[in-house]
Order: sequence, then C-alpha cells, then structure tokens
Amino acid sequence: MSHTIAIDCMGGDHGPSITVPAAFAFLRKHRKARVILVGQEEKIKPFLATSADCSGRYEIVHAEDVVAMDESPTLALKNKKKSSMRLALNLVKSGQADASISAGNTGALMAMSRFVLKMLPGIDRPALCPVMPTANGHVYMLDLGANVDCNAEHLLQFGIMGAMLASSLDHNERPRVGLLNIGAEDNKGNEVVRGAGILLKASGLNFVGNVEGDGIYRGEADVIVCDGFVGNVALKASEGLARMLGEALKQEFSRSLFSRLLALIALPVLRRFKANHDPRRYNGASLLGLRGLSMKSHGSADAIAFAHALARAYEAASNKAVERIGAKLAESRKQQEPYEPESE
Amino acid sequence: MSHTIAIDCMGGDHGPSITVPAAFAFLRKHRKARVILVGQEEKIKPFLATSADCSGRYEIVHAEDVVAMDESPTLALKNKKKSSMRLALNLVKSGQADASISAGNTGALMAMSRFVLKMLPGIDRPALCPVMPTANGHVYMLDLGANVDCNAEHLLQFGIMGAMLASSLDHNERPRVGLLNIGAEDNKGNEVVRGAGILLKASGLNFVGNVEGDGIYRGEADVIVCDGFVGNVALKASEGLARMLGEALKQEFSRSLFSRLLALIALPVLRRFKANHDPRRYNGASLLGLRGLSMKSHGSADAIAFAHALARAYEAASNKAVERIGAKLAESRKQQEPYEPESE
Repeated sequence: MSHTIAIDCMGGDHGPSITVPAAFAFLRKHRKARVILVGQEEKIKPFLATSADCSGRYEIVHAEDVVAMDESPTLALKNKKKSSMRLALNLVKSGQADASISAGNTGALMAMSRFVLKMLPGIDRPALCPVMPTANGHVYMLDLGANVDCNAEHLLQFGIMGAMLASSLDHNERPRVGLLNIGAEDNKGNEVVRGAGILLKASGLNFVGNVEGDGIYRGEADVIVCDGFVGNVALKASEGLARMLGEALKQEFSRSLFSRLLALIALPVLRRFKANHDPRRYNGASLLGLRGLSMKSHGSADAIAFAHALARAYEAASNKAVERIGAKLAESRKQQEPYEPESE
Repeated sequence: MSHTIAIDCMGGDHGPSITVPAAFAFLRKHRKARVILVGQEEKIKPFLATSADCSGRYEIVHAEDVVAMDESPTLALKNKKKSSMRLALNLVKSGQADASISAGNTGALMAMSRFVLKMLPGIDRPALCPVMPTANGHVYMLDLGANVDCNAEHLLQFGIMGAMLASSLDHNERPRVGLLNIGAEDNKGNEVVRGAGILLKASGLNFVGNVEGDGIYRGEADVIVCDGFVGNVALKASEGLARMLGEALKQEFSRSLFSRLLALIALPVLRRFKANHDPRRYNGASLLGLRGLSMKSHGSADAIAFAHALARAYEAASNKAVERIGAKLAESRKQQEPYEPESE
C-alpha cells in the first residue's frame, strides 16, 4: 500500500535546498512512497529532480507563508494559517497525507499539531519522542518536549505511546519499557516517579523497571519514560560532556607536529568511528498523543539527516503508529477502572 | 592555624590499604595539617608511615565496628554506634576534628551526619555537592543526593550553600550561580524551577540565570543548582554517554593490526588526555547544610583520589565553609521577611 508524506519544505535552517533533495532521495529508496512538497512554489522548483523514477509520486502544494524559527508559537498559531507548516498538517487532517514532517520551529509545530490534528482522548499535549543511539542499538526516550510538570498518569501514557511507536518502527511487539530513575529499587525517586512505577507495572507493557542515567546509553530498555524537564536536561548534559571530551581530545591531537601527524594517520579509524555514530541516522522525533502523525526534524539537518527522518515518518505511517497508540491508550483507560479500587 | 581531619579509615572498597597511605601523602603535602585515623587499630597499623615528617601529626582512634557498603542506612544508624564512620563524625561534633571524611556507604553517611552533626536552621537534610570538570575549570553541582522532592526554597538554599562552598574552596568571593533548566528564558522549566529563579534573583548571590544541560560542562557557572533527582540523572547520563563513546573508540582502535599499532603510537597523546581529565582530581563531595563538615569520597577511590578529597576537606575547614554557609543562610532568612509581601 502506498503512503504519502506531507513535507514542510520551508522549515529548518536551510529550507528547500535541503528538504527537496532529501525528498527525492527518499522517493528513490521507497518505491511506493509519495510526497507532497508544501511551500513557496518558486523556491521549491529549482530543487526538483527530473529523474523518471520519481515522476507521478510527488506534487507541490503552494504555501504563501513561512513560520520563522524564532517566532512565538502563539503568534504563529494565530497568524500563520497559510504557512507551509500549517498546510502540511492540514493535509494529514484531511487524509490526503499519512504523516507530516517539519524541520521548523519546534514550539510552533507542537502548537499547530495540537490545534490541527487534535489530541487523543485523555492526552493534554504532545510528547516529543526522539530516538537515540545506545551501545547495542537505539532507544526511544520521551518526553523530551514541553511536558515539564508531569504526574504519574502522564508518565504511564508516555510508556504506552513509546512502546507502540517502538513496535511500529522496529517490528518489536514487546519493547522493553524502562522508567528513568535514580536507583534500581522500587522505593527510589520522587513521588511522581514512584507512582508511575506502580502504574507501569500494572500496565501490561513489558516494563523492565527503573533505568538510571547511564542505563540509557547502555541499552537497558527500548523505551525510556521521563518527564520533559528531566529528559531535556539528561540529553543536553550528556551531549555537553561528549562534546567537551571530543574537543579536548582534538586539542591534544593538535598540540605538536607529532600528534598532528598521528591524527592524520588515524583519520580512517576516526572516520569509521564517526560513521558508526553518525547522529544523522537518529534524526526524526515523533510528536505523540496526536490523532495524526507529525514528525520533527532537527532544524540544522542536512539532506541525509532529513531523509532519515522522512524514512522514519514513512515507517511509522506504514505500521499505523497512531492507530496502535490510540487503541492501547483506550485499552489502558478501560483496564484502569476495575484496577483502581485495588491499588493504593 | 592547624586543622584536623577525622578519617573513617574503614570505609570504601579498599579500607585502610588506601585511606591510610592517602592520609600520609596528604600530611606530607600539608605541613600544618593533622589527621585522626579512625578504625580497627590492627588493620590500620600495617599501613602507618614511619617517616619523621608526619610524626606527631596523626593519632589513631580505635573503632570496633564497620558500616558495610550495602547496609541499610537506618540499621547502620541504629546499630553501628561504635563504627569508624560514626566515631569520625563524633570527633567533629566534639570539636576534636574540623572535618570528617568517609569513602563508605553514602546513605549511612548522610543519615549519621544528620544525626550526629545536626542540620543548620531551616535545612531538612544534607545536600551532596560534588565538584565536576568543565571546559575551562570546574563546577560545584548540588543537590546530587537524596533531596528528590524539592521546592523553590530548597533550591535557593542549595544556591547559597554551593556559593559559600565555592568561595571557601576557590577564594572566589562572587561565584556565578546558575539554575539548571531547559532554556534560557525566565518562563522556562517546571513550576518549582521557575519559583527558584525568582528567589535566586532576589538573593544577593551572583545569579547568572538558567543553565541548560550542556552549559554544565561549558563552564557557564561556578555553582549549578538542581534537585537531587535531576542532578543524579544528568550526571549519570553524561557519564554513560562518555563511557559508551570511549568504549566504541577503543573498539575501533583494536579492529585491525594497523589500528592497534596506531593506538600504541598514540599512547603518549592519549595518556596526556587522560591525565588532564583524571577524575581522581575531582574526588570529594561535600555534605552541605550540616553544623559540621562531612565529606564523601568515592567508594572506589585509590590513594591519589582519596588524598584529593582529604585536601578538599582541609581547604573547606581552613576557610570555614560551614560558618560561611550558616551566616549566609541566616542572612537570607532575615532578608526574605521584608521581601516576601512584594513577591507574587
């Protein structure tokens, strides 16, 4: 079956010069896929591929406006009804596309996705779920978005949504769900997290218990649940330390002629290391809890990174991630009614 | 003036074989310092140094019991009144020592420090404040301990205590205090953190505003304030990613004969990198908010690491860290009375 991705071509630091070539690279790899290129037609056209193998599988939908990267989400929601970001979401809403993707302003994308696509029953706002590398694969972690005052129920919802996303993207029907915490024992953590542990245990998910900060990268779970505040800090702190050590190592290798020569000889090894840990492979975070599929690419993504995010959106659409999430959330709500009186 | 450190010689993974030699290395470097070696006399004696330059500056206080690394803090508090950990704290309480240090069970040390030394007015439980490397120096971060359900007032207290510790240890009278958050703007973060921002602004500290996760290692502040849950996760996550990348790089360098040779040639460069980032230099976390000085060493510390922690405890005692913290907390409580009616 064919699936269609609506692309906000104007979003991100580089706009159509990146998003349009990425779209064609994606079409060449996915022979049944279709894309709708949304944005200022005259800026998209110069980047269209002329190769025959993509013909008939793309169309352009003109959008006059563009949401700026630094625009206030509230103002964008109010004033940018004809923006490429908004029209791409409208195409999902109307059923003309199965997913939309944007490298634009995250806050505006959140607000518009929520307004246009609407939330699933019982969910307040979208959770942002990126995929991150681990020692032996990858992990989905959520929320890394705007949910910074969570209760235990929210964390349970994140667990359900993350597990259904993982099962859609990785064909793993029983993904291991872990709860980010400060120790292995049940009594560890703050009140909200301890409450979430009780709910996750009773959820029917493949809950593997608490995962500590270093367990994220050790691959102790396929899905890691946390509130948006903790997730954001953990992710940025770890990137920060990795960057600091990388810079220091680089400096050490540029101190003397000998060490500079050494670095030169070591280039093939270092390149292979870099390729194995290419962050572009992990581009494409899902906005979860919506009634439609909305994907976020890094703003600074290049064509390779953006194509990875497109492929992820396509995979999620093909495997009906939103439907799985909706069904499992509904099931969980039903289960909780007979369950609640027994719980503490 | 001479200062005396009481050392729990039995704590940590290696006990007296590490703590006693470290004590003598410390005495040789600090010619006015004195130590009290607390623990099982017959296990301490084999490691005593015979050199004349330390004579008269150490004594042994025999302690029958030892707190096990995996012992429950509550049980240790109840049953181990004659342990080396407890007696070392008693020596601070009675004024015979100016600080105590232990590489033992963290939870037990927290509980005993609180029980023996008592908290400063208005503080509920000790905050654990380690020192961590940054791109251009180091940073004190707190809490990394047991305060996992904090309110804004707690975070303000952490800011005050961390700033006074930094000023004691680094002779920096206006250390920059940052608030760990998920964005630079005042309206970012959860309710507690936003409230803490308001209090810190009005505190008279050199408050530099929000610091994001990656800002910790970029050296954007000298003191970083966070609740114990977020701090623990951020620290462990960053260590986890650094370890994962380090392992992967090592693997890359051991893949072929060529890359193994390369690693061998690069050894001097890699060694210098390691020396510059030697975690042993950062050993020694302070338990703050107590009426006396209690220091925690890593359990796995070797003699070099333990000697660094000893030096830090000595510096804090010499510069009256506890007195500074007490005075500033008292001042802050007074200031807040006229301030409160105006705040929201």
